[in-house]
Amino acid sequence: MAINKDTTNIGLLGLGVVGSAVAAVLRDKADMLAEQAGVTFSLQKALVRDLAKPRPGEIKAGLLTDDVRKVIADPAIDIIIELMGGEQPALGYIKEAIMRGKHVVTANKEVMAKYGYELLSLAKEYNVQLRYEASVGGGIPLIVPFEQSLSANDVSAIYAILNGTTNYILTRMSRDGLDFAVALRRAQELGYAEAEPVNDIEGVDAAYKLAILAGLAFHVRVNPQNIYREGISHLEARDFRYAEEFGYAIKLLAIAKREKGALDIRVHPVLIPEDSQLAKVDGVYNAVQVEGDLIGRVVFYGEGAGALPTASAVMADVLAVSKNRCCQEKEFSQRLVIRDLVMKPVTEIESCYYLRLSAADCAGVLAQISRVLGDNAISIASVVQKESDPATKSAEIVVMTHLAMEKALRKAIEELECLDVVKKISNFIRVEA
Amino acid sequence: MAINKDTTNIGLLGLGVVGSAVAAVLRDKADMLAEQAGVTFSLQKALVRDLAKPRPGEIKAGLLTDDVRKVIADPAIDIIIELMGGEQPALGYIKEAIMRGKHVVTANKEVMAKYGYELLSLAKEYNVQLRYEASVGGGIPLIVPFEQSLSANDVSAIYAILNGTTNYILTRMSRDGLDFAVALRRAQELGYAEAEPVNDIEGVDAAYKLAILAGLAFHVRVNPQNIYREGISHLEARDFRYAEEFGYAIKLLAIAKREKGALDIRVHPVLIPEDSQLAKVDGVYNAVQVEGDLIGRVVFYGEGAGALPTASAVMADVLAVSKNRCCQEKEFSQRLVIRDLVMKPVTEIESCYYLRLSAADCAGVLAQISRVLGDNAISIASVVQKESDPATKSAEIVVMTHLAMEKALRKAIEELECLDVVKKISNFIRVEA
Repeated sequence: MAINKDTTNIGLLGLGVVGSAVAAVLRDKADMLAEQAGVTFSLQKALVRDLAKPRPGEIKAGLLTDDVRKVIADPAIDIIIELMGGEQPALGYIKEAIMRGKHVVTANKEVMAKYGYELLSLAKEYNVQLRYEASVGGGIPLIVPFEQSLSANDVSAIYAILNGTTNYILTRMSRDGLDFAVALRRAQELGYAEAEPVNDIEGVDAAYKLAILAGLAFHVRVNPQNIYREGISHLEARDFRYAEEFGYAIKLLAIAKREKGALDIRVHPVLIPEDSQLAKVDGVYNAVQVEGDLIGRVVFYGEGAGALPTASAVMADVLAVSKNRCCQEKEFSQRLVIRDLVMKPVTEIESCYYLRLSAADCAGVLAQISRVLGDNAISIASVVQKESDPATKSAEIVVMTHLAMEKALRKAIEELECLDVVKKISNFIRVEA
Repeated sequence: MAINKDTTNIGLLGLGVVGSAVAAVLRDKADMLAEQAGVTFSLQKALVRDLAKPRPGEIKAGLLTDDVRKVIADPAIDIIIELMGGEQPALGYIKEAIMRGKHVVTANKEVMAKYGYELLSLAKEYNVQLRYEASVGGGIPLIVPFEQSLSANDVSAIYAILNGTTNYILTRMSRDGLDFAVALRRAQELGYAEAEPVNDIEGVDAAYKLAILAGLAFHVRVNPQNIYREGISHLEARDFRYAEEFGYAIKLLAIAKREKGALDIRVHPVLIPEDSQLAKVDGVYNAVQVEGDLIGRVVFYGEGAGALPTASAVMADVLAVSKNRCCQEKEFSQRLVIRDLVMKPVTEIESCYYLRLSAADCAGVLAQISRVLGDNAISIASVVQKESDPATKSAEIVVMTHLAMEKALRKAIEELECLDVVKKISNFIRVEA
């Protein structure tokens, strides 16, 4: 649907924190937006769950509705902004809006991660634009740079901190020596973590965002449910202390690497050199490092969430939809080029590893541990006995390995667990050089 | 001119390091580019200065010409890529190409800084696209994010490291304690600095790039010649040492801040906190930090120069021109919104300052210096006597001030120079908190 009028009418689905911020920007920056776009924007309807809920003056009562038909079936509305989050009913509403010829701007990472390709194809079929800059990295420009600026590159790797909640928790664990549970509670008190934080701390949120970025960078369709994930709840304060002694920080990284027809894609804690750009990303900030054959290494950094940064990305998309109104039919969408890359199982990856275990504090223990690792073709870079507990006659041992196969490491861990002298494998964390 | 054929014909102006890289990408990535764009790209002609110069196999001899007419006057050519650099004849060629209905992609920072507004207006008039992603920050996506992704923001400030040569020199001075002349020589030996390095080390190059970014961010026309500039040649190894003791790094920053109808815009060395994102940008890397009312703070980081990163940006523009071929007449260009902001003279700025001076090593000196500063309403944050030289009975004193007016500081420096006990004002450097 071409927008040729002097006014572009907007329908909003969801009036939570981000929705309210978008409504406020549409109201407070009306002149500036009109100047940018050459048209004025008018908020026509906003879908809310509860009409009775008091909403302090941010939006005229007459604009509110709890009937989605009044928004997506209104022929006067040109652009639907979907800010409900979650899979359903958002997915259904987006589809219907597209099929009614409306342009759609969404911040919905779950829907775009799971159904992005289908929705973009549908938008192409109905000659409308579907834009989703706000779905990854809050206000950090990512979708447009990935689509456009990096398009001549063969991207080889993405390393990203895509979840502010976990990065805040890890920062507190590292800086203040807090254990996971305490750091999580601090994050919850400050509103950085939800009461039900599982999507954040188990890497689900980061996997959605990684699926979107990897799709753009590698021209593949990634089912986010197939991305290997480990969360951060098994990390302990001492892991940060030991990592620091070796010159590393610990971050929850979203990683996607192309390797000879395969895609190595995963979300888990990683030891990264403390002088790397990503190691310096603290608190709720996000950062995305992209490596390509032409650009070398580029990093995008900023606030990965929050009402105003997300509203910034949403409004950039609204302005882009409006600016592209000149475009002819069948030309809105990106070319949906899809390449064949098989997803590499995590057991097939090769990595360096940090391994922390508790063992009997007696002679010959290191020899036994070294032999098991050696038998599995795992070469030790360094091994340090960290702390002894005379009461239990146990010692904590940290091993850093050279490059090894993940499946070899897992087999070695099973064998180590069978050794009499090994009391517990406390943790193993992958290391990126 | 709409490009509706299956082949997009390209004419190249300049076949130096970047031009050769672009020619190589067009050749080596032909399939990938065609897949992205839906058309194939064909290099038709390349303008070179010297036809006789041996060029090892990167381009067919028949494509070379030393006659610019054969490139910009060829009706078969759709896109001109200008990679000659410098003001003339590049400016004239770009204008003529536009007026002949050709789309233009350029990496020319000098031309875009000085004549960007005129050229973009001309392109609009002739219904062609003029794109210039490669003019700032090499392969780092900046122009597209500034134009599109940040467009709903009122940008308040840009702090940027835009020149890799100077950043490399400053990194060596800081890390290895080298003095300027030695660090410059190292940079020249490694090919990071030219034999005639004045444009880099005096901040001219950074000022061009800042003029382009500030123009986009603040919707103003900035004459780069009016940007206040200081280079890095007056810095000494000891300044880095002292700065580090106070917790600061020294970087050549390009700064643009909007302040109540005025634009504070300048390029000079700055002390910045060592834990800030920009302080961690080392070597030939560039970084641009943007602050806006919605996004908060976003940083873009990457290689700011080099043949491949620059070719990445050039080819992104070529692909974008090709993708926008659907657009109707009169709709290619950004809306050229221009706001009125007066340029603030540097004497009117307020800053903290680092002041290094050589004084007599005797009692009462600090009192005299403090009185001069106090008389000029400059409040001292700390003052440290660094080194004494018994032979000359002189001591080196470093003063860190609180916020003060630049004109007050300059007046104080004049007065300090008149004191008998002050031998020399060795350096003063602005400090950003």
